[in-house]
Amino acid sequence: MAISAIDETHDPKRQSWVGSANGHADFPLQNLPFGVFSPPGNYVPDAKARGGMAIGDKIFDIKAALAAGLFSDEAAIAARAASGGSLNPLMALGAGPRVALRRQVFDLLATDGKNAAKARDLATAILHDADVCAMHVPAKVMSFTDFFAGIHHATNGGRRRNPNDPLGPNYKYVPVAYHSRASSLQVSGQPIRRPSGQRKLPEENAPSYGPCRKLDYELEVAIWLGPGNRQGEPIPISEAADHIVGLGFVNDWSARDIQQWESAPLGPFLGKSFGSTVSPWIVTMEALAPFRVAQPARPGGDPRPLPYLWDEADQKAGAFAIELEAFILTEKMRASGQAPHRMSHSNTLDLYWTIAQMVAHQTCNGCNIEPGDLFGTGTISGPTPEGWGSLSELSRDGQQSNPLSSGETRTFLEDGDEAVFRAHARRDGYVSIGFGECRGRVVAG
Amino acid sequence: MAISAIDETHDPKRQSWVGSANGHADFPLQNLPFGVFSPPGNYVPDAKARGGMAIGDKIFDIKAALAAGLFSDEAAIAARAASGGSLNPLMALGAGPRVALRRQVFDLLATDGKNAAKARDLATAILHDADVCAMHVPAKVMSFTDFFAGIHHATNGGRRRNPNDPLGPNYKYVPVAYHSRASSLQVSGQPIRRPSGQRKLPEENAPSYGPCRKLDYELEVAIWLGPGNRQGEPIPISEAADHIVGLGFVNDWSARDIQQWESAPLGPFLGKSFGSTVSPWIVTMEALAPFRVAQPARPGGDPRPLPYLWDEADQKAGAFAIELEAFILTEKMRASGQAPHRMSHSNTLDLYWTIAQMVAHQTCNGCNIEPGDLFGTGTISGPTPEGWGSLSELSRDGQQSNPLSSGETRTFLEDGDEAVFRAHARRDGYVSIGFGECRGRVVAG
Repeated sequence: MAISAIDETHDPKRQSWVGSANGHADFPLQNLPFGVFSPPGNYVPDAKARGGMAIGDKIFDIKAALAAGLFSDEAAIAARAASGGSLNPLMALGAGPRVALRRQVFDLLATDGKNAAKARDLATAILHDADVCAMHVPAKVMSFTDFFAGIHHATNGGRRRNPNDPLGPNYKYVPVAYHSRASSLQVSGQPIRRPSGQRKLPEENAPSYGPCRKLDYELEVAIWLGPGNRQGEPIPISEAADHIVGLGFVNDWSARDIQQWESAPLGPFLGKSFGSTVSPWIVTMEALAPFRVAQPARPGGDPRPLPYLWDEADQKAGAFAIELEAFILTEKMRASGQAPHRMSHSNTLDLYWTIAQMVAHQTCNGCNIEPGDLFGTGTISGPTPEGWGSLSELSRDGQQSNPLSSGETRTFLEDGDEAVFRAHARRDGYVSIGFGECRGRVVAG
Repeated sequence: MAISAIDETHDPKRQSWVGSANGHADFPLQNLPFGVFSPPGNYVPDAKARGGMAIGDKIFDIKAALAAGLFSDEAAIAARAASGGSLNPLMALGAGPRVALRRQVFDLLATDGKNAAKARDLATAILHDADVCAMHVPAKVMSFTDFFAGIHHATNGGRRRNPNDPLGPNYKYVPVAYHSRASSLQVSGQPIRRPSGQRKLPEENAPSYGPCRKLDYELEVAIWLGPGNRQGEPIPISEAADHIVGLGFVNDWSARDIQQWESAPLGPFLGKSFGSTVSPWIVTMEALAPFRVAQPARPGGDPRPLPYLWDEADQKAGAFAIELEAFILTEKMRASGQAPHRMSHSNTLDLYWTIAQMVAHQTCNGCNIEPGDLFGTGTISGPTPEGWGSLSELSRDGQQSNPLSSGETRTFLEDGDEAVFRAHARRDGYVSIGFGECRGRVVAG
């Protein structure tokens, strides 16, 4: 493999016979992201979770299509691996079969596809209405690494610790990261319970245990990985692309008061581990191929990455340019039918490190990645307050309230608030694609 | 369940018809720890990994005994769960079936057991020589949490950061912990490759990537967990004992130079994730029941634990009193047939927090534990240098070399050095039990 190239699946003139796909903000024919869904039990004999691909407002059922004999060769191998309740087996296969499967599905669903007629005949068996299906976390995540690659977010947080050197001496050399909690990952749409924990405000003499008083969201991009490496054998950056499946969202919910009290000296723990929300669709590296822009040189004075973090081809292919938005929908907005209020918009170009650099760094000591492992990029904030991807930044850790379109204000999240993330990749001459939403509503603890 | 009581399986007068068990330093009849092993292929038809229990210098084959019809009721359920290549299914069952299985195996292997005759007839089928079997990591670990509960270790490390307040304001309130890496866990006996990584010595202008120059071991006790809780539903400390399977070792190998450069502000990452070694045997809470001593009150001035970390029954049952030893065996010692050199001896009583407190803390925010999850206690150091459980402490971060019995000296580990851990629980009137060894030899990167 190596870095995904632009090919016929990005041709903007191609349309789908699934009508809702054409002009769809997230899931046109040119996207075809992978996920795991359960069709509704009442009309599907086997409603167990299985792999699917989003197309317009439908879900393409990989297992049903495989059973109908629609796949051949490598694509059939991939389809078999994607027929179970998690995509780990698909991720374990590497890019080749996945690419073949996406190409064959593209051909099946394109109006002018060679095999489109066969697929159209089977439409009722292989397509489900997305809005009546249940979505799942797409893979059993063995390890969840959270990076800190959003440089404006790192600067905003660091400024509170050390105004003179907010990033510290290592930030521009090390793709800083920590291990986060895999067991409590949940999928978009599931409520997030306000955690309790130990916290101590500066004015308090001693800590107490109780509900979080500084509940926050963090707008992060999720990176799904596979097949990964053997322990002791680092993945060179030139081969990193072979181990990146695709992207989605992770909302790295953060209990700031718990985090601030617990984190010395070993880092965040319970302030993060009560739950993290991922979006259900994995937008593949293949679909995202057109949406990269060559990396500018490091700003003057910034060090050139160490050789193990430097790959000419990765730099030339460029960083992903994906527009990100974070919204809040309060109970009041929901009751009155208002749209969510946009809190920020930023871009994956605000990341200091590329995804390939993250893969190379994670494994440079011999640590092994397993199929289904997940990276979070770290909160992606833009350079100005309009782009700050967490309430901790927007409220200056609770010191400043933020007005909402409903007339309400927020420093941190209140019960009933829903955080909503959206992402779109756009480029002239190409069909825009999106991640689909990542939503989570806070409920009382 | 609740906290394990002393029962007939701790009777010091009971002996085993497996001769090597009687007087065995680690695995007498009164221990019966669980592990996963592969019998040698040449004489066992099905040599696939399965659960076993250590007895003297033999391994009792749970799957073979189940097939021979030696178990009934709950014990048969547990035996079935322990017949596969990992103990996660056994851990998922909770304590009841596990306790029943250990009792029936005790009866089968006791000289005067009611069913001993049946078992003796089948001895060649159900017992394997341990030294020809391969041991495995006993469970697929989903999440690996590393605590920091060894207060002398925390003090020694903190002193370098802040001599006036080495523990910081949170240590005596919060069972400090961080998430470590589950994917790179390995079992005793496997070599550990010297990792490379990014590190910067104080006298260097910029970091470089290369082999670790401060490779260390950390003497920690491993805590195996199951069945665990549902996300959002904390385990109250009064029920924590129901989720603790047993204990073993973890050697939390640490690349100090990598760790020191990378850790700000999110904690250790690649300095730990290149590999952690666990001992193969899980010594159950049941076997350890006699080896607890009632907790003294917190030293004067130390805060009483917050209510969610306080359980009268846990305090009365007491902390575990297990003697720990760390050794180094160098290439020179190995070549000349010398015994390993003992670097330290400490005791699990040097932990500031009980295991029940760790379970309550891990879940107090709603984070879920899964069957097979692993805690490390953090390095267990005694109060004086004789008890310091890592080279970083013994060498004052490389400033002081330590003489070995071979005439060599060490600040940090050299290629060819093997770290060896041993543990024994002793109490008058009871048969001593041990963990078996945890070994790992450093090989060049």
